[in-house]
Amino acid sequence: MNQSAPEKDEHSVIHSTFTIERTYPQSPERVFHAFADKATVRRWRIEGDGFAIAEFSFDFRVGGGEVSRFSYGGGPEVRLDAQFQDIVPDQRIVFSYRMAVGPQPMSASLTTVELTPSGDGTRLTYTEQGAFFDGVDSAQGREEGTRGLLEALGAELQKSK
Amino acid sequence: MNQSAPEKDEHSVIHSTFTIERTYPQSPERVFHAFADKATVRRWRIEGDGFAIAEFSFDFRVGGGEVSRFSYGGGPEVRLDAQFQDIVPDQRIVFSYRMAVGPQPMSASLTTVELTPSGDGTRLTYTEQGAFFDGVDSAQGREEGTRGLLEALGAELQKSK
Repeated sequence: MNQSAPEKDEHSVIHSTFTIERTYPQSPERVFHAFADKATVRRWRIEGDGFAIAEFSFDFRVGGGEVSRFSYGGGPEVRLDAQFQDIVPDQRIVFSYRMAVGPQPMSASLTTVELTPSGDGTRLTYTEQGAFFDGVDSAQGREEGTRGLLEALGAELQKSK
Repeated sequence: MNQSAPEKDEHSVIHSTFTIERTYPQSPERVFHAFADKATVRRWRIEGDGFAIAEFSFDFRVGGGEVSRFSYGGGPEVRLDAQFQDIVPDQRIVFSYRMAVGPQPMSASLTTVELTPSGDGTRLTYTEQGAFFDGVDSAQGREEGTRGLLEALGAELQKSK
């Protein structure tokens, strides 16, 4: 966590970078597929108890992107717009994304997922460089949320073949 | 400058963040316009002696972007693809962009430009969070290049009304 102090003016930005490492027993090809395949992504990253999904479009290629719109427990709509910036099959995925809650922009981020063989499994290094707007969201919350998603990825990899 | 050590494997990524501050005598409205107006952007950021411009498309709105293709001194084509992530008029512009030289991806970045009044002028804070691929480009070179661009912006602001 590398986070500058919050500012007091209405339009503040906090820049933050975090890195999370995980090792999965599945191969890099399997882990890569879980980031590349629309139905698989939807299972581990979008669906969940209490979430209502209004939109999930996903075009996995450099120049393509994702739009997800969902709400949780009857709350306001959260929208994610992602753009794939770089893809190296079985090795690297880089994407930018912004998030908004209702009409309010929350953040813009650049995320790098690196996959390297580790024995029979995969070491995943997840680096997110983020700009968090106007105190709507926190960098710390994003890191905690990402740890939860990488747990969900592990569960998905165990379930699917 | 916050740069991790380079890796030896073929598909390495170096993550780096730099911040540059500049003060210009012109108003935030004037400085914002120089980032928002296509013809002005082209003058200070794209054109230059020895550059051949093959494409410059520019759509300044959240969800819009820029495509620039150019070469220098008969060298390979450089391509920049940008996406505007957040815009607060006269205050903030956030964009992601990737660069490639020929078929080779160089980098993906997230850039935040913050404008605040400073006397009669403007304090500009330029923060770039970048991922540099496979040793093709360096974070240090990007920071130096950006300093040059912010000099060119100052010259443009002095020239135009």
